Amino acid sequence: MATGPDSITLLDSLDALADWRAAQSGSVHFVPTMGNLHAGHLKLVEHAAQDGTAVIASIFVNPTQFGPGEDFERYPRTLAADLEALASAGCDAAWTPASATMYPLPEAYRFAIRAPAALADCLCGAHRPGHFDGVCGVVMRLLWQLRPERAVFGEKDYQQLLIIRRMVEDFSVPVAIDAAPTVREADGLALSSRNRYLTDSEREIAPALYRVLQALADEAAEQGPGTFDRLRRSGMERLASLGFRPEYVELRNAETLAPADGSDDRVFAAAYLGRARLIDNVAVTRQNRL
Amino acid sequence: MATGPDSITLLDSLDALADWRAAQSGSVHFVPTMGNLHAGHLKLVEHAAQDGTAVIASIFVNPTQFGPGEDFERYPRTLAADLEALASAGCDAAWTPASATMYPLPEAYRFAIRAPAALADCLCGAHRPGHFDGVCGVVMRLLWQLRPERAVFGEKDYQQLLIIRRMVEDFSVPVAIDAAPTVREADGLALSSRNRYLTDSEREIAPALYRVLQALADEAAEQGPGTFDRLRRSGMERLASLGFRPEYVELRNAETLAPADGSDDRVFAAAYLGRARLIDNVAVTRQNRL
Repeated sequence: MATGPDSITLLDSLDALADWRAAQSGSVHFVPTMGNLHAGHLKLVEHAAQDGTAVIASIFVNPTQFGPGEDFERYPRTLAADLEALASAGCDAAWTPASATMYPLPEAYRFAIRAPAALADCLCGAHRPGHFDGVCGVVMRLLWQLRPERAVFGEKDYQQLLIIRRMVEDFSVPVAIDAAPTVREADGLALSSRNRYLTDSEREIAPALYRVLQALADEAAEQGPGTFDRLRRSGMERLASLGFRPEYVELRNAETLAPADGSDDRVFAAAYLGRARLIDNVAVTRQNRL
Repeated sequence: MATGPDSITLLDSLDALADWRAAQSGSVHFVPTMGNLHAGHLKLVEHAAQDGTAVIASIFVNPTQFGPGEDFERYPRTLAADLEALASAGCDAAWTPASATMYPLPEAYRFAIRAPAALADCLCGAHRPGHFDGVCGVVMRLLWQLRPERAVFGEKDYQQLLIIRRMVEDFSVPVAIDAAPTVREADGLALSSRNRYLTDSEREIAPALYRVLQALADEAAEQGPGTFDRLRRSGMERLASLGFRPEYVELRNAETLAPADGSDDRVFAAAYLGRARLIDNVAVTRQNRL
């Protein structure tokens, strides 16, 4: 196996993975990805590697978390560049299973995780039915395959992060789930593989999503829960007037996703810009502006 | 901790369990139970212990696998006798979690496993909606809690055994699932905690369930798949004429539970006798009669 500072061990079978896992004497930290890596993913790897622990990243475009008509087919696949980027970021191994390795049984015999409606049927889940069930199913498989001591998820996909935290708690999975802050472009746009769907003119508008969320968070912090419903509607209007097709703007409790009540709240939004579906979220507190 | 030959380590918190698990240098074998142990359970323990490996049994009456109107409330709880029996059978530890330990999240935030309809919505699953989802959910939790190298299930609950095998395969859980043959009374009645619901006169009728299944298996082996539908109906009639209220009699493939086709088939039945719901199954082959 290659072991240089800028090399990475490529694992694409359960046997190879089991051998690699058995050879790790200490902890293993894990970064799940769907590939097409950007600086946000690499921050997750750096976070995972920070105490010198072995880091493994998975690259798997998981079909079960895409709905009909979503972008599973055109989701960008960039394996060679991804492996190079992972190696540079200090990742020790890449787990790149085929679909039949991740889902060994015929579809009619496949098991699923059902995430609780309270967490999974609101926000993005209300617009992407079954999405979080698919995420939970693949993460549960990955956790059994890798049995990491720690796994790192980005706050950009906050609902996903929270659902995985609760799933791990509910099933007593012995893994710590770390959150890494959203990485942004200089103009505030949250990094996302889907940003490449933006045209040049859409790219100029895109950072406004974050600015609107910051403004809503400021106003929510100042004006209190009585104003949240008005702020939500106002957020939808502001995004629409900027050229977005907003899917939702919501204020929710950061731990339960119940409607926000003035303590530990976050503002969440999803909005289309052209064919790109963008999501973002910020804590309800005075925002540090760029 | 007690360590004599007829003693057993009682574990009732995740912390105590983690300490015990970490102290096992070799493999751990696992026998899941709902308590009220009989000789059938103890055979599972003996099977699990046969190569000198540490054996842990769980005792947990799992609410999520009981339907409304089923016997969750009156299911017999006999912890002291169970622990004594486990110790005598060579079990090293008993895992007896409280419900809040097994299911730490409020019900609205609980995750579930959805077993595939092809396996879970036929036979017992057709009459106990959600039953196997509940079984899968608790077994998935137990597997994370204990991380055993091997787990032993009885063939008496054949559909459960098969579903757990497939779940473990589908999620890449690193555990071997062993099957232990059904243990029977001298007159052929399969041992079951629910046999205690039988009155004396019902107890005399009860062994006929096994005899009918043996006869059907003989006839199916001799007469071939063309007769299976007739045999199924005949089985229902024979059970009814003996005083049972049969729920189903089915011939199914032993690996897929698809309708039997003449190779690797089993006969399955469930039938009420008074308030006891009895189940049994046998392979389609010339039966060795008692």
